[in-house]
Amino acid sequence: MQYEQLKTLETKQARQHIRASEYTGHTAGIAKSNLQGNVVILPLKYAFDFLRYCQRNPQSCPLITVSDTGNPNLSELGVDIDIRTDVPEYCVYKNGHLINTTTDILSLWQTDFVTFVIGCSFSFEQELLNHNIPIRHIENNKVVSMYLTNINTRPSGIFSGSMVVSMRPMKLEHIASACIISAKYSKAHGSPVHIGDPSIIGIRDINQPNWGDKTQFKASEVPVFWACGVTPQNAVKAACPAICITHSPGKMLITDLLA
Amino acid sequence: MQYEQLKTLETKQARQHIRASEYTGHTAGIAKSNLQGNVVILPLKYAFDFLRYCQRNPQSCPLITVSDTGNPNLSELGVDIDIRTDVPEYCVYKNGHLINTTTDILSLWQTDFVTFVIGCSFSFEQELLNHNIPIRHIENNKVVSMYLTNINTRPSGIFSGSMVVSMRPMKLEHIASACIISAKYSKAHGSPVHIGDPSIIGIRDINQPNWGDKTQFKASEVPVFWACGVTPQNAVKAACPAICITHSPGKMLITDLLA
Repeated sequence: MQYEQLKTLETKQARQHIRASEYTGHTAGIAKSNLQGNVVILPLKYAFDFLRYCQRNPQSCPLITVSDTGNPNLSELGVDIDIRTDVPEYCVYKNGHLINTTTDILSLWQTDFVTFVIGCSFSFEQELLNHNIPIRHIENNKVVSMYLTNINTRPSGIFSGSMVVSMRPMKLEHIASACIISAKYSKAHGSPVHIGDPSIIGIRDINQPNWGDKTQFKASEVPVFWACGVTPQNAVKAACPAICITHSPGKMLITDLLA
Repeated sequence: MQYEQLKTLETKQARQHIRASEYTGHTAGIAKSNLQGNVVILPLKYAFDFLRYCQRNPQSCPLITVSDTGNPNLSELGVDIDIRTDVPEYCVYKNGHLINTTTDILSLWQTDFVTFVIGCSFSFEQELLNHNIPIRHIENNKVVSMYLTNINTRPSGIFSGSMVVSMRPMKLEHIASACIISAKYSKAHGSPVHIGDPSIIGIRDINQPNWGDKTQFKASEVPVFWACGVTPQNAVKAACPAICITHSPGKMLITDLLA
């Protein structure tokens, strides 16, 4: 299943192709009106520290939902959602090391797993497009550029670390609208955390993102940075839990909720 | 220390009198511009279920902050705040039974305690007063009337139960403004959950509140109900944790944050 095909499908159909591992790519621009989420799955013993981490860092980690312990269904996000199959690609971490990527986690599921779904900037991208603000990585069918910054998050127990940001190049005349529009999406990271000089937030080379693809700039465009849902992944990786499963950056859970 | 005296003091001074147990009454109208909070203190083993309960019921349980485990200080709410002394009166529950009320919990503190501070409708009351909307229980120096309803909350682990509401009598011409103003205070229960006939939400007798004082109605006033921070107390009581400490209803933690 190609990206261009999946983009034309209804949400439930798109999710069925993802569930069947027929599509394993990024989800930007897919099921355009729908809320997408970052996913973090952890054993119960880490769940309180992690939930408090989200509570303390709402711009990076805007919580959409927390599952019942051991329950792979997330019925409030979509009656049929099964978190073990419905993400295009998962990253499996053991003791802080990425040991595998996989298109389902059926064989890895534990009865003490808790799933956290965290808002994603894709939610406001469609609204930016509706206001004729171009989104380069969607135009170019790439994964948004993501960078580790020097902005500290507030720690909680074993979880801490720097904020990860996503970046979109914008012309100056679009920036005010982009700020106002994204600010309304508090469950999708809200307004930008930084505009302009990347070095101020600790990014050395805008052409070398830590995650995602390099983004092409056009003349007179400025980088605009939003808090990113990879922040909690990064905190989890550093905390070295025995096991943690996340979505692959850019490859989100698509929910039935509207963005 | 009398209520009328305390009302004239600055926040830090008011809190010092509370800390010294010189004032043990309700806090409505005290340190008017400041955020007040409901308090729930639980051992770590219950903390994840309870934090998820708050996340799932944001209108009843709008989280202001969650402490570090075992740390009685809440520096983000006020540099000097010590949750063991800074609430006018505490309720101590063991296995779901109220066994004591006390003006400090220094001797009860455990190294595995986690403190949850939850927003309170007092935050928007000052703004209602600023808009010339009378608040009867403040006029009369009473504790706001609180009622158990038939509105279910979303359970989380051991925590579940019905929503508790606070009630303020209003003239019809004030209700639109009261809704609009309180809706802005998402960390203070937001807009009303019900207006008018109490029986629709399971309240049999408006003159017999489950908590707080009976409220006097004037001619042509209608009861307006807001979700209340006693909801989580009620859920905690029903869950019968080995120990739980809360504020006494109406007797809140006063923070240094603005409401």
